[in-house]
Amino acid sequence: VTYELYYWPQIQGRGEFVRLALEEAGAAYLDVAREPRGMDAFMKFMNDTDNKRPSFAPPLLKAAEIVIGQTANILLFLGERHDLAPENERDRLWTHQLQLTIADFLVEIHDTHHPLGPSLYYEEQKTEAARRNAIFLRERAPKFLDYFECVLARNGTGEYMVGGALTYVDLSAMQIVKGLQYAFPKAMARLAPRYSRLIALAERVSARPRIAAYLASPRRIPFNQQGIFRHYSELDGPQTHPPLMTQRGKHH
Amino acid sequence: VTYELYYWPQIQGRGEFVRLALEEAGAAYLDVAREPRGMDAFMKFMNDTDNKRPSFAPPLLKAAEIVIGQTANILLFLGERHDLAPENERDRLWTHQLQLTIADFLVEIHDTHHPLGPSLYYEEQKTEAARRNAIFLRERAPKFLDYFECVLARNGTGEYMVGGALTYVDLSAMQIVKGLQYAFPKAMARLAPRYSRLIALAERVSARPRIAAYLASPRRIPFNQQGIFRHYSELDGPQTHPPLMTQRGKHH
Repeated sequence: VTYELYYWPQIQGRGEFVRLALEEAGAAYLDVAREPRGMDAFMKFMNDTDNKRPSFAPPLLKAAEIVIGQTANILLFLGERHDLAPENERDRLWTHQLQLTIADFLVEIHDTHHPLGPSLYYEEQKTEAARRNAIFLRERAPKFLDYFECVLARNGTGEYMVGGALTYVDLSAMQIVKGLQYAFPKAMARLAPRYSRLIALAERVSARPRIAAYLASPRRIPFNQQGIFRHYSELDGPQTHPPLMTQRGKHH
Repeated sequence: VTYELYYWPQIQGRGEFVRLALEEAGAAYLDVAREPRGMDAFMKFMNDTDNKRPSFAPPLLKAAEIVIGQTANILLFLGERHDLAPENERDRLWTHQLQLTIADFLVEIHDTHHPLGPSLYYEEQKTEAARRNAIFLRERAPKFLDYFECVLARNGTGEYMVGGALTYVDLSAMQIVKGLQYAFPKAMARLAPRYSRLIALAERVSARPRIAAYLASPRRIPFNQQGIFRHYSELDGPQTHPPLMTQRGKHH
């Protein structure tokens, strides 16, 4: 089966988490909206009024007769199909739980530049963004990053998030780390020593043959200012020298 | 097996979606933090540094040896166990997709009073909340509500969200409708004619014997001003006369 991925063609966005899983699996897929006349096909698919099961938003993955929406749900499906998640129920649920926590983190990352929601441009909510972003870098990002560093530390050798093999969560964690490094180069450089396991994981995942080939290919859309991870220098500023929070490290 | 639910004892919050599923299933469960000395047990469980698989946040459900975090993940598990979701893979993924979209909606509902995130009190972000809330009532809430109304309309008789039987998504949709009616009584009264299927679903679900008994019992924590759904009269004001958006209804 050749999968069809339906997602915006000009950004990594949430679709990137699906692309990474498809690439690591070596699966055949069509990135529909990036094909010739693909935007027409994409919009037609999204707005099909005969569709009995419409999706709220992309990404969508079509696998023969099944159409799946919601990023973490797509990964749940691909994880089982392509050995990117453990087989037993307990481990499968744990893997999915971590992915859903990554999804929560991603919303907060997005909201640093869109605290009033997606209806307004960043330029229309810069004041609010500056305030939310400061709190994000001081409290929320460290809370999430502490958490994932802790999950790695408590998982045996710390080489993977779950057990002793790669899962889609490792791929997604790589994407999060790379995205944060793009959006907040100064802040992330300062935080690097604190998140050595997580950053090492991102490097290991990036160096896997299929992922490395993908990242070097034109299939990988570069980070840009329309995506979830955006670099605004005014948001990567001096407010990012955080005092250690009392809550930080409590997972360790 | 008697389940153990770990969640904050003073709010409905995300735990409520789990409580509703447990109640409809007639499952035996302990709402741990609400038992005598329950907060100690809850905090100890959450902060157990020997736990190899720590969770980022409650709710957590303990089922014998399995501990599951993330609301939608817990419902995925309970749905299979208690016939609150279809059995075949395609329908099961579709059900989960709807639940994840409800989770997205819930974040935006929460952020109407916390646009700068959970670190500050509402009183510290009232100005930003007023602005985000106006956009929410004008664009985002109708977009989500249109979507779920459309899902109901396209699902045969419109009696359930998925197929011809109750799923955990119907329970969650009821909670969303009731919560919005608590938080935005004026706005929801105005919108009611537009969402007749969704509101009828909420009434039907509320009247199911086990759910009705639960809602009338002390086990149901009332809506209050510490939860996700909060009533601030200044946020339920005149900005809630929305013009019909061009995007609205596009799912129909």
